[in-house]
Amino acid sequence: MFFHEQELQYTATPAAPDAVYARRMQEILGGQYGEITVAMQYSFQAWNAHLPGKYRDLLFGIAAEEFSHVEMIAVMIAQLLEKLPVEQSEAAIKADPTVGAILGGTDVQAAIVAGAGVRPVDSNGNPWQASYITASGNLLADFTANANAEMQGRVQVARIFEMTDDAGVRDMLSFLIARDTVHQQQWEAAAAELRAEKIEDVPVPSNFPRSNEAEIAKYPFINFSDGQMAKEGSWANGPTPDGQGTFSYEEAPFPTDTAAFPPPTQPDPRFFGTTGKPNVLEKAEGFVKDKVSKK
Amino acid sequence: MFFHEQELQYTATPAAPDAVYARRMQEILGGQYGEITVAMQYSFQAWNAHLPGKYRDLLFGIAAEEFSHVEMIAVMIAQLLEKLPVEQSEAAIKADPTVGAILGGTDVQAAIVAGAGVRPVDSNGNPWQASYITASGNLLADFTANANAEMQGRVQVARIFEMTDDAGVRDMLSFLIARDTVHQQQWEAAAAELRAEKIEDVPVPSNFPRSNEAEIAKYPFINFSDGQMAKEGSWANGPTPDGQGTFSYEEAPFPTDTAAFPPPTQPDPRFFGTTGKPNVLEKAEGFVKDKVSKK
Amino acid sequence: MFFHEQELQYTATPAAPDAVYARRMQEILGGQYGEITVAMQYSFQAWNAHLPGKYRDLLFGIAAEEFSHVEMIAVMIAQLLEKLPVEQSEAAIKADPTVGAILGGTDVQAAIVAGAGVRPVDSNGNPWQASYITASGNLLADFTANANAEMQGRVQVARIFEMTDDAGVRDMLSFLIARDTVHQQQWEAAAAELRAEKIEDVPVPSNFPRSNEAEIAKYPFINFSDGQMAKEGSWANGPTPDGQGTFSYEEAPFPTDTAAFPPPTQPDPRFFGTTGKPNVLEKAEGFVKDKVSKK
Amino acid sequence: MFFHEQELQYTATPAAPDAVYARRMQEILGGQYGEITVAMQYSFQAWNAHLPGKYRDLLFGIAAEEFSHVEMIAVMIAQLLEKLPVEQSEAAIKADPTVGAILGGTDVQAAIVAGAGVRPVDSNGNPWQASYITASGNLLADFTANANAEMQGRVQVARIFEMTDDAGVRDMLSFLIARDTVHQQQWEAAAAELRAEKIEDVPVPSNFPRSNEAEIAKYPFINFSDGQMAKEGSWANGPTPDGQGTFSYEEAPFPTDTAAFPPPTQPDPRFFGTTGKPNVLEKAEGFVKDKVSKK
Amino acid sequence: MFFHEQELQYTATPAAPDAVYARRMQEILGGQYGEITVAMQYSFQAWNAHLPGKYRDLLFGIAAEEFSHVEMIAVMIAQLLEKLPVEQSEAAIKADPTVGAILGGTDVQAAIVAGAGVRPVDSNGNPWQASYITASGNLLADFTANANAEMQGRVQVARIFEMTDDAGVRDMLSFLIARDTVHQQQWEAAAAELRAEKIEDVPVPSNFPRSNEAEIAKYPFINFSDGQMAKEGSWANGPTPDGQGTFSYEEAPFPTDTAAFPPPTQPDPRFFGTTGKPNVLEKAEGFVKDKVSKK
Amino acid sequence: MFFHEQELQYTATPAAPDAVYARRMQEILGGQYGEITVAMQYSFQAWNAHLPGKYRDLLFGIAAEEFSHVEMIAVMIAQLLEKLPVEQSEAAIKADPTVGAILGGTDVQAAIVAGAGVRPVDSNGNPWQASYITASGNLLADFTANANAEMQGRVQVARIFEMTDDAGVRDMLSFLIARDTVHQQQWEAAAAELRAEKIEDVPVPSNFPRSNEAEIAKYPFINFSDGQMAKEGSWANGPTPDGQGTFSYEEAPFPTDTAAFPPPTQPDPRFFGTTGKPNVLEKAEGFVKDKVSKK
Repeated sequence: MFFHEQELQYTATPAAPDAVYARRMQEILGGQYGEITVAMQYSFQAWNAHLPGKYRDLLFGIAAEEFSHVEMIAVMIAQLLEKLPVEQSEAAIKADPTVGAILGGTDVQAAIVAGAGVRPVDSNGNPWQASYITASGNLLADFTANANAEMQGRVQVARIFEMTDDAGVRDMLSFLIARDTVHQQQWEAAAAELRAEKIEDVPVPSNFPRSNEAEIAKYPFINFSDGQMAKEGSWANGPTPDGQGTFSYEEAPFPTDTAAFPPPTQPDPRFFGTTGKPNVLEKAEGFVKDKVSKK
Repeated sequence: MFFHEQELQYTATPAAPDAVYARRMQEILGGQYGEITVAMQYSFQAWNAHLPGKYRDLLFGIAAEEFSHVEMIAVMIAQLLEKLPVEQSEAAIKADPTVGAILGGTDVQAAIVAGAGVRPVDSNGNPWQASYITASGNLLADFTANANAEMQGRVQVARIFEMTDDAGVRDMLSFLIARDTVHQQQWEAAAAELRAEKIEDVPVPSNFPRSNEAEIAKYPFINFSDGQMAKEGSWANGPTPDGQGTFSYEEAPFPTDTAAFPPPTQPDPRFFGTTGKPNVLEKAEGFVKDKVSKK
Repeated sequence: MFFHEQELQYTATPAAPDAVYARRMQEILGGQYGEITVAMQYSFQAWNAHLPGKYRDLLFGIAAEEFSHVEMIAVMIAQLLEKLPVEQSEAAIKADPTVGAILGGTDVQAAIVAGAGVRPVDSNGNPWQASYITASGNLLADFTANANAEMQGRVQVARIFEMTDDAGVRDMLSFLIARDTVHQQQWEAAAAELRAEKIEDVPVPSNFPRSNEAEIAKYPFINFSDGQMAKEGSWANGPTPDGQGTFSYEEAPFPTDTAAFPPPTQPDPRFFGTTGKPNVLEKAEGFVKDKVSKK
Repeated sequence: MFFHEQELQYTATPAAPDAVYARRMQEILGGQYGEITVAMQYSFQAWNAHLPGKYRDLLFGIAAEEFSHVEMIAVMIAQLLEKLPVEQSEAAIKADPTVGAILGGTDVQAAIVAGAGVRPVDSNGNPWQASYITASGNLLADFTANANAEMQGRVQVARIFEMTDDAGVRDMLSFLIARDTVHQQQWEAAAAELRAEKIEDVPVPSNFPRSNEAEIAKYPFINFSDGQMAKEGSWANGPTPDGQGTFSYEEAPFPTDTAAFPPPTQPDPRFFGTTGKPNVLEKAEGFVKDKVSKK
Repeated sequence: MFFHEQELQYTATPAAPDAVYARRMQEILGGQYGEITVAMQYSFQAWNAHLPGKYRDLLFGIAAEEFSHVEMIAVMIAQLLEKLPVEQSEAAIKADPTVGAILGGTDVQAAIVAGAGVRPVDSNGNPWQASYITASGNLLADFTANANAEMQGRVQVARIFEMTDDAGVRDMLSFLIARDTVHQQQWEAAAAELRAEKIEDVPVPSNFPRSNEAEIAKYPFINFSDGQMAKEGSWANGPTPDGQGTFSYEEAPFPTDTAAFPPPTQPDPRFFGTTGKPNVLEKAEGFVKDKVSKK
Repeated sequence: MFFHEQELQYTATPAAPDAVYARRMQEILGGQYGEITVAMQYSFQAWNAHLPGKYRDLLFGIAAEEFSHVEMIAVMIAQLLEKLPVEQSEAAIKADPTVGAILGGTDVQAAIVAGAGVRPVDSNGNPWQASYITASGNLLADFTANANAEMQGRVQVARIFEMTDDAGVRDMLSFLIARDTVHQQQWEAAAAELRAEKIEDVPVPSNFPRSNEAEIAKYPFINFSDGQMAKEGSWANGPTPDGQGTFSYEEAPFPTDTAAFPPPTQPDPRFFGTTGKPNVLEKAEGFVKDKVSKK
C-alpha cells in the first residue's frame, strides 16, 4: 500500500523559471533512466520476489523513495515552466529574437498539451514506456540492472547539473546525485551479499547446469573485429571472475569448423512465398467463381 | 565496415520443426534483451567511444559476434516455422484439436506477415525498438549495462532451453548460453580493469565532484517502506564499496526536516488552466467577429 | 512524498493459480485504462494543479489509492502465475493437450521474461505507455477524463469478473469494482462542483471568449452520414447544456458555401518534390566533382 | 462507405506561411486529442455499436465531419510550410540568426521526410497511434470519452489560437473551436439521453449487478494523502449522483483491517528465479555433453 | 471533405462467427500493410501533392475507396466476434477443451477492451501507428511505395483467404484481392506515366544533379557477402534501367582504398564520458557546499 | 556470420563540427528509411528466402554494405557533435544568442543521454523500430519494397545534402547518394529478372489463382473523389501491365448495387455493451455477497 504526504523529501524550487531547462529535466523524470523507471522497476522486482526478507525489504524501501523523487522533479519542472510564453509563431520570434531562441529549446507539448505543465515524457517528448524496466525474478541479474540504472541516471543528472547555474535547481540536483551515489553502491553491495550468501552467483543464473554449456565456447574472447588490442585485456587472459576457468583469446571465426548454412525453408505454398517452383493452387477456384457470378 | 559470410558460427538446425517454440525463441532475437539489442548496443558504444585501444576493440570484437548470433537464431526460427499450418479458423481447430492447441501457441504474424518466416519482434510480437539499448559514452556505466544484458539474456536462454527437448535446438542454445557466460564475465572483468586503471570508478561518473553532492544524503539507506529487515544488509551498514564512507540506516522521511510543497504555478491565463480566478480574455474578440461575419 | 507499507488495502489471493486468467488480469494493471494509468494520471494532474485546496487534495487522495490498487493486482497476478508450466513446445502440447490449451491462453513473456512474474503490460503484452494519460491543467476537462477512465475501467473489470469463477479473484474484483463505482461518481460530483462554483464551465475551457467562435458553426449538428435518425436526438434539438443556445440540424456540407481547395504548395525545389516543372539544380556540381575526382 | 469531395468545409488558408506555427498545429492533427483521434474513435464506436438508430447515426454523422477537419488542418499545415528553408546547418544559422530562431521551432522531419509537407504526427513528431482511441461497446462510457476528447481538443485549439495573430489561421480555428463547442455539448446531451431512456446509467456499466460489489467500499472517499480539504467536497458528503447512496469520508488505510501481504511465489525452479534454496537441475546434463563432445 | 453512407461497397457478412479468424483479419485492417495504412497514406500524399490534376485526383480517388474497405473489414470482424465466449479461465478451458483451443487463437483485448468488438490493431494486438505510412512529396517514390503496399497487402489477404473456408469471408476477400490487383497495377501504370511524361524518373529524385554523386560508386554491385551467384544477375551486368550506365561487379571492400577510422571524439569533459584523462571539474564545488551546509 | 574491420568504406569526416546538422543526419541513420532499416530489411529477407542462389546472394551482398553505411554515418554524427555545448539554460541562451539558435536545432538527448554521441534514433528523437522493415517471403513484393526504400532514402539524403555546405559531409553524402542510385536500380533490375524468369509476376503473389478474384472488381479505376482528371490516366484506360485485361473507369459507388449494412452485433450481455435491452445479470450475486459479508 502507498500513502502520500504533501511534503517533499527535499527542497525543489528554482531560483527562477527556465522553460528551456525544464525540457532538459524531463529526461530524468520520464526518460529511459529517469525516476519513473527506477520507481517502477524496483516495485515490480519486489512484487516478483520469491524470497521474503531483507532483499525484498530493500526493494520496497528504495522504490517508494524513487516515487518521491518523481514528485520532486515533477514539481520542479512545473515551476520552471511558469513563465513559458504563449505566442509561438514566426511573427512572435521575429518580434523578439530572444523569444525565438528560447522557444527553440522548449517542449512544445508542455505548452499545448499541458498548459505549461510537467508531462510523463523524456526530453524529446517520447512518452515513458514500461519496456524500459527490468524485473526478471532473478535477483542478481536484477540488482545488476539496478546498479546500471543508477549509474546511467547519475551520469545524466551530472550532465544536466552542468547545464545550469540556477542555485535552486543545483541544490535539488545535489540531493538527487547523492542519492544516486548511495543507491548505486547499495545495489553493488546487495549483489555482493547475494554472492557471499551463495544465493546466486555468476554466471547468472547460477543454478543452470554449466554442463549444459558447449565446452568449447565457455572461455574464449573471440575477436570478430580486426582491432589488435583487445587481446591484452583481462577479459582475454587469466582467471574468469567465477574462478572456474581461464579466459583465452581466439580469432573469429570460432569454432573454426563453422556450420554450413542450412538449406532454405519450403513452407506450404499457400503462404505465397517465392520458391522458384510453379505452384498449382487452383483448388479453391470453383467456390469463389460461383459466389461472385451472382454479381 | 561489416562483411558477411554464408556460414554460421555454430550449427543451427532443429531436430524437427516446432512453430510453437519458434515464437518462444523470438524473445532472444528481438526482445528487450535479445541478440539484436546486444549487437546494436555494443556497436553504438564503440562508435561513441572516446578512448581508442583495447576497450573499443573489445566492444567491436563482441558486437560483430552478436550480429552473428542474430543470424543463427533467425535461421533457426525460420526452420522451426517450416511446418506452420495455413488453416487458422475455428473450423480448422474443431476439425483437429491438436491444430488448435498448436495455433494458440504460435505467432500469427509469422504466418500472415512473413509467410512462415522469422521477424524482428519479441515473443509477444512487439517490434524491436532502439530504446532498448544503452550507449552513454561512460564506459563503466555501459559495461555494467552490458553485464546486465548478458545476465538477463542468459536467464532467458536458460528458460527457453528448459522449454524444449529438441536436440538440435538445445545444441545451439548450449553454445549461446556458453557465450553469455563468458561475455557476462568479460564485461565484469572489463569494468574491474577500468577501475584498476583509474580510468573510471564508482560512483559513476567518477569525475563529477563529490563535493557537489548534498552531504546529508550520501550514505544512508532510507527506508520508505515498513519492512524491518533491510536494516540488516550490507547496504545499510559498514563501508561503502568506494571506500569513501560508511552506510547508515534511516527511517523515512529523511531529511527529517522535509520541504514544504511549493505553491501552485500560475502560468499565463491564455493556457486556459483552471486557476479559480476570472480570466478576462476578450481582447481578440473583434478580429474574428469581423472575419466570420462575411459568412 | 510516497510511503509504502507491506500490507494490502484488501485481500488479493486467488483460490487457485490460473495462468490463463493472469493474462486477462494484466489488462487492468498495465492497459490503457488499467490502474497504472489512473495512478499516474491523477498524480500528474495534482502536480500540474494551479489551484491549492480541495480539488488538489482530491487528486492526491485518490492517486495514492490507485497505486495501492496497482500493488494488489500485481501481487494477485504473481500468484495466479505460480503454476505456469515450463515446457512450451509442440511436443509438450501433443503430450498433454490440456497443456496446449492452457499455453495458448497465457502470456509467453510472463514465462521467459519475468520467470512466472507480473509485468507492466496489457493483456496483449503491449508495455504500458505514458501517452495513455491526460493532464491538461484544465480541471473540468481532466475530471471528465477521469470519469471516463473510471467508466472504462469498471467496464473492463466487470468483464473479467465474468471470465472466472475463482472465489478469491472475484472477492478482490468486487472491491475494485466498488471503488470504480465510487470514483466514477466522485469525478462527476467534482466536475459538477467546479461548474457550481463558477470555476470552470462548459464549453471547456470556459474562459476562452466565445465571440472568437465562428457564429455559424456554434449550434448545428451537421450530418455527414446518411442515417436519418440522428435528427431526432436532443443533440439536434432544444437548448444546449450550457443554456446559451439551441441545437439545430443541418445536412452536410455545411456551411453550404464550402471553400475551394487551395492550390498545391510550391516549396523550394531542393526538397525534390514532384512539381511538374524542370528543376535546374546543378549549382552544387563543381564542388563534389573536385572532391571525388581524387578517388 | 466514404466519399471524398475536393472542397473544404471551411476556408483553410493562412495569411502567410509560418513553418514554426505549422509544428504547433500538428498537435491538433496527429496528437492524442487531434482530429485523427476523434475521426477514428467515432468510426470504431459506430462499427462496434450494438444498437441501430439514432445513437449510431450520431456517431457516423460526426465521424465523417472529423475526417473533413483532418483534411482542413492538413491542407493548412502544408501551406504554412511553403517557405520552410532548406539550409539547416550551424553555418546557415550563424549567417542569419533569424533563420536559426525559426529552425529551432520547426519540425525537422517536415523538411527531410515530407519535403515541406504535413505529416501524421503530433507537435513533437510522435506518430499518431491507435492506442489513443476508445471504443468499448458501452455507449455511456464512450460518449463520456467523446466529451472528454472534445474538451481536451478545444483546450488545445484555444491555446494555439492564442499563439498566432495570423488572420487566416485564426479564421479556420474559430470554426474548429465552434465545432468543438457544439460537439462537446452534443456528447453530453447524448449521454444524458441514454440515461433518461434507461438504456445505460451510472455507474457504468449499469447492468453489472451492484450486489457483486464489496459493500464496504461503495461510498467512501478514502484519503490516501494528508491534505485536509478534500473532506469538504461534494464527493465526500451527501448523495451520490446515482441516487443510491451517500458519500462518506474515511482516512486511509481503509478497510481498516487491511490484508496481509501473501507469501512470495515459488514457481518451477527451471524459471531460474532467486529462491534462496539450492536448485538441483542437472537432469539435462547428459544430453548436451554428448552433443557437444563431437566438436 | 469526406461523406459517409451507411452502405458497404461489397457484402461483408460471414457464413458463421469465428472469433479465431477475426484475429487473423485484424492484420489487414490495422497492420503495417492493412487498409488503414493505405487510406491514410494516399490521403497524406494527396494533401502534400505539389501538382494539381490527374495524379492528385488518382490519389484522392483511391484513398476514399480504401477508407470504405476499412469499414467493410471492421464490420466483418465485429460479426466474426459475435459468439466470442466470455469465460476465459483455466477452469473454463478444462471444462471444455474446444473452448481452450479457440481462446488460444483469439485476441483477448477484443473481449476485455472492446466487448467483442473490432479494434484498430494488427493480428498481434499492436495498435496501428502512423509511422507505417509514406508521403514524401516525390510522386515517383511514393507511387512505388504504393505499389509495394498493394503487393504486400495482396500477399497478406491471399494468405488469410487460404486460412478459412467460410463462404462469406471468402466472398468479401475475393473482392478485396481483386481491388489489390488493380490498384497494384494502377500505381505501376502511374509510375510509368510519370516517367513517360518526364515529370520524374529513376534514379529518384531525378532532379538531383547526378554530377553530385561520387563517380566511382554509381554502377557497381559490391558484394559484401561471400555468395558467388549474385555476379550473374542483371544487377551486376549490362545497362542500368535509367540507360545512363552499365552495372559492374566488385568484391568488397570497395573502394579498395578504404578510409581510416577517424580518431575518437573528445567532447567537453562535463559530459562525463570516459576519456582516459583525469578530469578536474571542481569549479562548481563551492556553490553547492554552501547551499547544502544549511541542512 | 558477420565480421567487422576498423576501416570505413568511404571517408566520413566533416570539415567542422556542426551539432545542428548532426540532428538532421540522424534521419538517414535511425529513421523510417535510414540505413538501419535497409540493413535489417535485406538481412531478414535473406534469412527468410526460400530460394538459394543469386537472389539470396544479392540480398546478403547488399545487406552487409548497408551495415557498413550505418557505421559511416554513426562515426560522422559523433564527430559533428564534438563541439556540442554543455550549458543549455535560458541564462546561457540569453548570454549568447547564437548558442540559443544552435541549441534549438540540436537533439537534446544527444547531450544528456549520449554525452555528445550518436544515437539509434531519427531526427525527431524517435527510436528506430523494427516495424519499419518488410520481409514477406515473396521476393517480387520485397524487391519492390526495397526499390521504394532506396528511393525514399535517396530523396532524404539529397535533401540533407542541400542543407549544408560542409565539404566533408557533402563528400560522404555524394558516396551514399551514388549507392542509393545504384541500389535503387538494382532492385528494379532484380524485380524485372524475377518476372522474366517467370518466378514471380504481377499481380503479386502471382500464384494466387486469379479465378478467386471477384470478376467485377478486377479492372476498374473507381473514383471515390470528385476530381475529373483521373479518368485520363493510363490507370483508367488501356491494357493492364500484366497484359491480362483492360483498365476501365467507374464512378463510385461501384459495384452499383452496394451492400446493405449488416445488423448490429449482439454479443453475450456479460460484455456489458449497450444493447437497449434490459440485461438481467444477477446470477453471480449470491456468491460475492457471502464473501464480502465477512468484512
